[in-house]
Amino acid sequence: MATDPSTYEFNHTMYRVKDPKASVDFYTQKLGMSLIVKIDFEEAKFSLYFLAYGVPKSIQEASFEERRKYAFSRPGVLELTHNWGTETDDSFEGYHTGNSEPKGYGHIGVIVDDVDAACARLEEQGVDFLKKPNDGRMKNIAFVTDPDGYWIEILPKGF
Amino acid sequence: MATDPSTYEFNHTMYRVKDPKASVDFYTQKLGMSLIVKIDFEEAKFSLYFLAYGVPKSIQEASFEERRKYAFSRPGVLELTHNWGTETDDSFEGYHTGNSEPKGYGHIGVIVDDVDAACARLEEQGVDFLKKPNDGRMKNIAFVTDPDGYWIEILPKGF
Repeated sequence: MATDPSTYEFNHTMYRVKDPKASVDFYTQKLGMSLIVKIDFEEAKFSLYFLAYGVPKSIQEASFEERRKYAFSRPGVLELTHNWGTETDDSFEGYHTGNSEPKGYGHIGVIVDDVDAACARLEEQGVDFLKKPNDGRMKNIAFVTDPDGYWIEILPKGF
Repeated sequence: MATDPSTYEFNHTMYRVKDPKASVDFYTQKLGMSLIVKIDFEEAKFSLYFLAYGVPKSIQEASFEERRKYAFSRPGVLELTHNWGTETDDSFEGYHTGNSEPKGYGHIGVIVDDVDAACARLEEQGVDFLKKPNDGRMKNIAFVTDPDGYWIEILPKGF
């Protein structure tokens, strides 16, 4: 019974979202990820949405089982958990982004080809900015928020 | 001014930690990641620690600048933020993991070569388990906690 930690992989990052339609639209249409697979848990009343960059067309068109296996076989996967009903529950107060008290989780960082052009496109699409590339002291990075208010850093490769 | 979202990369996931010595020891010695680079922000009194799996020896031995650029050039990077002083501040109440109220962030998932062997090793090292592989209905996955209480899913490739 041996195990070699140097072969481990950082597969995914999970956070909860209120409305999967809004979130999946945001991460696919605006941030450019692909939806790999949605997995429903009928009894426990939740669904998981796995998204990533660089998903081959052959996987996007593959069977549920192949797409499921793919989601658990590579790094850079974003897992969104949707507890059924939050999207239409007016009493639901939303999820905590980790960036107001009590703090904890911070953000995900997305490398883009051209920070100014990427941010111009996101702005046209109505994405909310916490920091535009030229705001503040840290030039050439931006922070946007997703539909739940989670932070996303937009930065150039090799920043 | 054009940008192609299909070329974007999910670079890193950031959360805050109380004591970087404990956290870096945990993610390197126990979970098997490598520390790529530590970046200090003297004026703002915080440091960032970038860790990942699969960091080439040539990078581990490279200059600060090369290691910094590498950290911002690949997916699967874990960024830990240390606000100076929290590690010795008895009044500091710790960071929120996102898994108690108010919920939000959930966990990172780490693919291992052999879940039972990996968990046996982690147990020997005194790592805290929320769920061992044979607990509950979801066999062959485990959940452990890091020094701040953040959750980490331990799962097999292609789960």
